[in-house]
Amino acid sequence: MTKTQYYTATSLDGFIADAANSLGWLDQFEGVDGSDYEEFIEAVGALAMGSTTYQWLLDHHIRPGTPEQQPWPYSQPAWVFSSRDLPAIDGADIRFVRGDVRPVYGEMVQAAGGKNVWIVGGGDLAGQFYDHGLLDELIITIAPVTLGSGASLLPRVIASPPLLLLSATTWGKTFVRLHYQVQRPPG
Amino acid sequence: MTKTQYYTATSLDGFIADAANSLGWLDQFEGVDGSDYEEFIEAVGALAMGSTTYQWLLDHHIRPGTPEQQPWPYSQPAWVFSSRDLPAIDGADIRFVRGDVRPVYGEMVQAAGGKNVWIVGGGDLAGQFYDHGLLDELIITIAPVTLGSGASLLPRVIASPPLLLLSATTWGKTFVRLHYQVQRPPG
Repeated sequence: MTKTQYYTATSLDGFIADAANSLGWLDQFEGVDGSDYEEFIEAVGALAMGSTTYQWLLDHHIRPGTPEQQPWPYSQPAWVFSSRDLPAIDGADIRFVRGDVRPVYGEMVQAAGGKNVWIVGGGDLAGQFYDHGLLDELIITIAPVTLGSGASLLPRVIASPPLLLLSATTWGKTFVRLHYQVQRPPG
Repeated sequence: MTKTQYYTATSLDGFIADAANSLGWLDQFEGVDGSDYEEFIEAVGALAMGSTTYQWLLDHHIRPGTPEQQPWPYSQPAWVFSSRDLPAIDGADIRFVRGDVRPVYGEMVQAAGGKNVWIVGGGDLAGQFYDHGLLDELIITIAPVTLGSGASLLPRVIASPPLLLLSATTWGKTFVRLHYQVQRPPG
């Protein structure tokens, strides 16, 4: 059954990007073994991201038009939520959408064909899925840094009912991955 | 050897108190087994807190002058950092101080007699010890909630060198306690 998962890295103090909207603080950990990303992405059938995440991917990984240009990294269909016009990428299955996440969620689940839906980020997009009862799990990898300010992991109050901790897994002396289930309010 | 430890609970998104400066969101977990607090406090010889933490203890736990008044919970000498006048508590070993943490740190280590120094909170006080290279460890218990806003866990950039993850321990489907060592910059 399709689960909608918010899978991301964060600082210990809850920021997914620093005050300059950068993920550069993650680069120092690139050689750390133990990531479950391959296993995770194998089970993903569709993914969604906001415009800031998409723009960051473009600028830092794909870099279209440069000698270092990389291909779009996902074979799954991707939905990009944005209220502004963003450049497309040749050969990538990307659908630009705006507004309410609910109709898009229906399309994503259908496209996923029984696999999972990945909310790549940012935090507010994950929050919009949460707001409508459409977020099933958080899979949060905590990096051993504090950033003090930046883009919030999940700008919502989720306290009653609380999340349910399914597991905590460490990789070396660096990362801990926390897997939570979102509980529905009773009634 | 004395270690200076910042031991606190936080939300998954890095807030030690909610936007109303309350810890009420922690109350729902009161019955959860597995806390290491008794073992931790046994090894503490001195403690420090800021004025907000002290005022919260007064208002919510000790409640002086009410029929529910409780004794001060610590037998160790406590330093309260505050730039304002705060009420004392009869029979409690509390020293009110202000300004630079460094001279007070020296007094605390001496009073601790080989045991540890506990920075109870808030985040900025822990940050002041960090700023002067006086913070050795973070022991952070993550509650399965997000708060969206509130009092920051540790309003500092600690990324280079990063923290060193010593252990991650879960209690039930609720808490994970992360134990980090603060690394000194080389040189």
